[in-house]
Amino acid sequence: MNKKNKKINASILIIGNEILSGRTQDKNVSFISNWLNSKCGISVNEVRIIPDTEKIIVKNILHLSRKFNYVFTTGGIGPTHDDITAKSIAKAFKVKYEYHKEAFTILENYYGKKKFNNGRKKMAKMPSGAKLIYNPSSAAPGFVIKNVISLPGVPSILNSMIENCKKFLIKGLKVHSQTINLYTVESNISKQLGFIQRKYKRFVDIGSYPFFRLGKIGVAIVTRSTSLIKLKKVKKELFKLIKLKKIKILKI
Amino acid sequence: MNKKNKKINASILIIGNEILSGRTQDKNVSFISNWLNSKCGISVNEVRIIPDTEKIIVKNILHLSRKFNYVFTTGGIGPTHDDITAKSIAKAFKVKYEYHKEAFTILENYYGKKKFNNGRKKMAKMPSGAKLIYNPSSAAPGFVIKNVISLPGVPSILNSMIENCKKFLIKGLKVHSQTINLYTVESNISKQLGFIQRKYKRFVDIGSYPFFRLGKIGVAIVTRSTSLIKLKKVKKELFKLIKLKKIKILKI
Repeated sequence: MNKKNKKINASILIIGNEILSGRTQDKNVSFISNWLNSKCGISVNEVRIIPDTEKIIVKNILHLSRKFNYVFTTGGIGPTHDDITAKSIAKAFKVKYEYHKEAFTILENYYGKKKFNNGRKKMAKMPSGAKLIYNPSSAAPGFVIKNVISLPGVPSILNSMIENCKKFLIKGLKVHSQTINLYTVESNISKQLGFIQRKYKRFVDIGSYPFFRLGKIGVAIVTRSTSLIKLKKVKKELFKLIKLKKIKILKI
Repeated sequence: MNKKNKKINASILIIGNEILSGRTQDKNVSFISNWLNSKCGISVNEVRIIPDTEKIIVKNILHLSRKFNYVFTTGGIGPTHDDITAKSIAKAFKVKYEYHKEAFTILENYYGKKKFNNGRKKMAKMPSGAKLIYNPSSAAPGFVIKNVISLPGVPSILNSMIENCKKFLIKGLKVHSQTINLYTVESNISKQLGFIQRKYKRFVDIGSYPFFRLGKIGVAIVTRSTSLIKLKKVKKELFKLIKLKKIKILKI
């Protein structure tokens, strides 16, 4: 399926006490969001980070899967007691939580019969009817059920699996993005920027982000749109403003 | 106020298209959560990342402020058109969005009357009745209204302001945490770990996190509890397991 004329959205549900407690810095949101946007034309519209608690996972899966075209979950599909994502999703969708035959075979071949203990077998248990997302780096597959795509939490493993999610997704319109880095402060251009934003409200999102890097203070103006033509028009207006205010453009 | 006998929780609401799109990697969740936990005994129980859209901000502020003791927002309190956090919070709580006298004076003194343009004045507009969180690095204050604490999105500025939030918070019980890094794989210990977790369910959270760093594969076992005594008991049981399985402890 490849309907290119639609706006498709997604949400990300990060499941894990280690992210909530601040012990681990999440890296998956920006990776998944960038990949979805650039490769699939899908925008991430909401992210939630929640604890490893069944009731909370069930509630959020139901809410987000109704609200968005896709829900990506990360974390909680490993072999230990705190890995309860698959079980909770099965509960949310009222399907059995059982061994997935192919996942079982993949894991049994990977570990060898002798070393295929109960912890490892647990990674083959999924909601009934789930389809596998193959894992080229550590064998244990992710899965898709309805519009929910479940991936592991370890960034290097997740990254290696992301291309295998593609076949389960309907592509949307690609969002194009342009960034201009200006040697100025936000308040110097805020009025005119607001004017341009209002003018192109329906077609282009304009974001303004102050930065302090390489010893320089500046503002990154980020424009985003599914229409390259509208983006070009906004760029023209921005350059008019830049000229008028005699602002230097930073190449970084 | 300093009631030390309570469990106090918080949520974090990250407001910003740049985080959702993956352009910017959030760094505030782990910083705020670590600070709240270690300095105030407050646990972060949910995080949401949402776009710069008034309706969505209003909805989330109302929901989270009812559900948790505190809500920390980051982002959207600067001078540009996409900075709508203060206005949206005013709307959520049905109070006026107006100049805060002290914030106005602080900003006027900081920029000087001549350079205090409309964009900068906007940073003094807040929900009526808000109290200021002083900003030692770039003057523009954050604010507190009801149980919502609004901070800027730029991590270096937010970090410089965090201590100024303390006086608005009731402290909770400190959550103590211990980490043991093991040279093993999760499935080798998952059964026994699950047993220990069930035994201490009410008092201690045990997390198991595989890692691949410094060329070594291992598992970090993280135990968290408000009771140091229970934590010590769990540690004893963990060391029994480690001895039984002849697992090497990694010092990293």
